[in-house]
Amino acid sequence: MTNPFYYQRRLIQIIGACLLMLSLTMNTQAQDKNQIVRIAKLKIDSSQLKLYNAALKEEIETSIRVEPGVLTLYAVAEKKNPAHITILEIYANTAAYKSHIETVHFKKYKTTTKDMVKSLELVDTDPIILGAKKR
Amino acid sequence: MTNPFYYQRRLIQIIGACLLMLSLTMNTQAQDKNQIVRIAKLKIDSSQLKLYNAALKEEIETSIRVEPGVLTLYAVAEKKNPAHITILEIYANTAAYKSHIETVHFKKYKTTTKDMVKSLELVDTDPIILGAKKR
Repeated sequence: MTNPFYYQRRLIQIIGACLLMLSLTMNTQAQDKNQIVRIAKLKIDSSQLKLYNAALKEEIETSIRVEPGVLTLYAVAEKKNPAHITILEIYANTAAYKSHIETVHFKKYKTTTKDMVKSLELVDTDPIILGAKKR
Repeated sequence: MTNPFYYQRRLIQIIGACLLMLSLTMNTQAQDKNQIVRIAKLKIDSSQLKLYNAALKEEIETSIRVEPGVLTLYAVAEKKNPAHITILEIYANTAAYKSHIETVHFKKYKTTTKDMVKSLELVDTDPIILGAKKR
């Protein structure tokens, strides 16, 4: 039979891992004063909307996956006018944002979409409250 | 000394709990076609902005805490004009939204703020991609 201490040690390791996961969760829940919270409002050439949306999806999916400081990129299209797009952007801090716009995937998005975007307005904001369920 | 099977059982219980946590996380990550995603654009009477923001914070904090179907309420104020407020709202489904507007806390917010809100525009949207770090 296996050494009983095997399970004791495993138990301690797993409790440690659970506590670490919990502490990471709690850290990222906190609203940080250094965060950059911004709204981007875009109007897209309707004839290129499918291509634009595909490029935007790829850019956002990659940014969230590979950039630790890109926290939230919620992109939505108006039901009444799908070519009017709003993106709510949250970056961990200024350095994270500066790093984001220098990435290969962001530059690719900008190049790909430059003739699709008819207008872009960037609105800097202060969060009042960022309420969300724990996920 | 303790029965060695004690640790074996505890280990299995804790692995089970971790798997349950993981599966819950993954479920709530999924983007659900039934979700309602909306942008509310408000202009507030500047002289009552502090009172309005306090009422909004209370309403959002309560909704997220007590209503299972209120998933996200991100409220931000424009830096250049703090009386211009945008709220990105995500509800689990139509029933969750209908239930939300019948709650005591929502009705209290509406009554308290009715003379503070100069205009309210509700924009129904379709998500293109809701990208966010796991929290």
